[in-house]
Amino acid sequence: MTDDAKPTPRLIAVDWGTSSLRAWLLADQGYVVDARSAKRGIMQIADGDFATVFRELVGDWVATYGELPALACGMIGSRGGWAEAEYVDCPADLASLAKRLLRVEAEPVPLHIVPGVMQPSGAGRLPDVMRGEETQVLGALAIAPELAERGLLVLPGTHCKWVRIADQRLNAFTTYMTGELFAVLREHSILGKPAGPDTAPVDTAAFELGVDTARDAGAAGVAATLFSTRSRMLAGELSAEATPDYLSGLLIGDELRSVLAAHHELPPLRLIGDQALCGRYRRALARFDIDDVADVPDAACTGLWRIADAAGLLSH
Amino acid sequence: MTDDAKPTPRLIAVDWGTSSLRAWLLADQGYVVDARSAKRGIMQIADGDFATVFRELVGDWVATYGELPALACGMIGSRGGWAEAEYVDCPADLASLAKRLLRVEAEPVPLHIVPGVMQPSGAGRLPDVMRGEETQVLGALAIAPELAERGLLVLPGTHCKWVRIADQRLNAFTTYMTGELFAVLREHSILGKPAGPDTAPVDTAAFELGVDTARDAGAAGVAATLFSTRSRMLAGELSAEATPDYLSGLLIGDELRSVLAAHHELPPLRLIGDQALCGRYRRALARFDIDDVADVPDAACTGLWRIADAAGLLSH
Repeated sequence: MTDDAKPTPRLIAVDWGTSSLRAWLLADQGYVVDARSAKRGIMQIADGDFATVFRELVGDWVATYGELPALACGMIGSRGGWAEAEYVDCPADLASLAKRLLRVEAEPVPLHIVPGVMQPSGAGRLPDVMRGEETQVLGALAIAPELAERGLLVLPGTHCKWVRIADQRLNAFTTYMTGELFAVLREHSILGKPAGPDTAPVDTAAFELGVDTARDAGAAGVAATLFSTRSRMLAGELSAEATPDYLSGLLIGDELRSVLAAHHELPPLRLIGDQALCGRYRRALARFDIDDVADVPDAACTGLWRIADAAGLLSH
Repeated sequence: MTDDAKPTPRLIAVDWGTSSLRAWLLADQGYVVDARSAKRGIMQIADGDFATVFRELVGDWVATYGELPALACGMIGSRGGWAEAEYVDCPADLASLAKRLLRVEAEPVPLHIVPGVMQPSGAGRLPDVMRGEETQVLGALAIAPELAERGLLVLPGTHCKWVRIADQRLNAFTTYMTGELFAVLREHSILGKPAGPDTAPVDTAAFELGVDTARDAGAAGVAATLFSTRSRMLAGELSAEATPDYLSGLLIGDELRSVLAAHHELPPLRLIGDQALCGRYRRALARFDIDDVADVPDAACTGLWRIADAAGLLSH
């Protein structure tokens, strides 16, 4: 049952990650006609039957609106996903990504998958990889075009990506495992033991003490400060309940310290992602006298629209 | 049944840590008459009945040789141990530690416990704590007296301690959680997944690549290199089986990088502890052009003998 007031759907856009699955029905200019999400990330689909999940997710859209093109980004294109979409080398841009979509035959329509991006070794750079973030970045460049000539995009999360933009291209990037490091230390190390289960409000003072401690460690880095999460508690400087926020501040603070050590001058900066997590990064950045860093709102569906357009998927 | 050829026992010395328990029967000059060990660290004694474990450990020695003084060091003196021995502040030395033994009434003889050492906050130093290592250090200073005026002792392990010695005193120290960090990342993070269970021989090339990568990261530190454990594998530069040794090299390498960043000039260096682990540190040090670092053999029982002597326990 179509709604005559709504613009005509042109694309099914899917962000299919490790732990979540989101889909949008998009009309011209990426207008969102409908949206849905499910806890059906690739890790939650134990039997690997991605075809059934996809059919159930979009079947009614196709039944209602006809055969639409479908495009997905994220870990669905990894070895552990539906099919492996090869990496495109960095520097990467809209054209190089759009040229390399992987087509998977599926019901009710074929699914195209955006390749990941690999930064090869060399010129003093470590190899690095992303899957899904490249689409966020291309979306962000449409939302915040002032960054397209020169910018630094930060995508906090389990594996936080810092992506350097130059001349509309994704030029280089570094992955910081800050989120995963926090999770494993919180859950499995001696540093996580004293605090009980997570309490709701953030202990801002403890978080900022962690950030400042990481900042002031200078080149000695987090290796020399990590144990202070415990020793400050034993010395009576930190309550047991405050240790997780201190640890979070210490790890995010060390990430910022590391990024600043690697840059002579920081390009214009934007944060993309979860509001609460971006809030932590913004608070930590302020301790380094970097204020007023703006957020770019979630940009995955904008990025998928742009890539689909560049790949010619919308012309059918 | 005494052996007339053996010197007369004078002290029961006990190193009672988190995961292991070792005891020695010592004669003059710390000569080892008998030794035993058990997997009865404080974490393995679920019911907290340390008294029974102690009685079973040394009962026959007392029955054979009479009422000997007993002295223990390590986590047995922590809040989770038998009784809490307060920390002595840093700088600490033989006299300040010997003065603050905690006496616990026990069968067949009372047990004295060496206090831990706390480095208070201040003068740009983070607070830090140790329990057990102070005794190793005092033993090492007797074994390697050339370090007593100025030296740096490294005690690799779950929580590696770097201890600065000046004028026969334990002057300052820093804890590096390298061992625990490796264990939680190996077991619980995405970095540990690709490799199967531990294989026996160390992959030296992968270990050294990790060390070099950490060294060459400079001030950016381990935050910027940790994910390379995975990305190098995805880029085909590292086999899945080699990733644990690469990660080990990366973490030990970052520890050394951090220590060197904090020192203008490194004092004379010695390693104490597990042979295989000291071997990894020695190999990593060589990648920083620090060669021929000698080991000090296990020094706990020497340290216990010295402390017992300074405390007057041997005069009875």
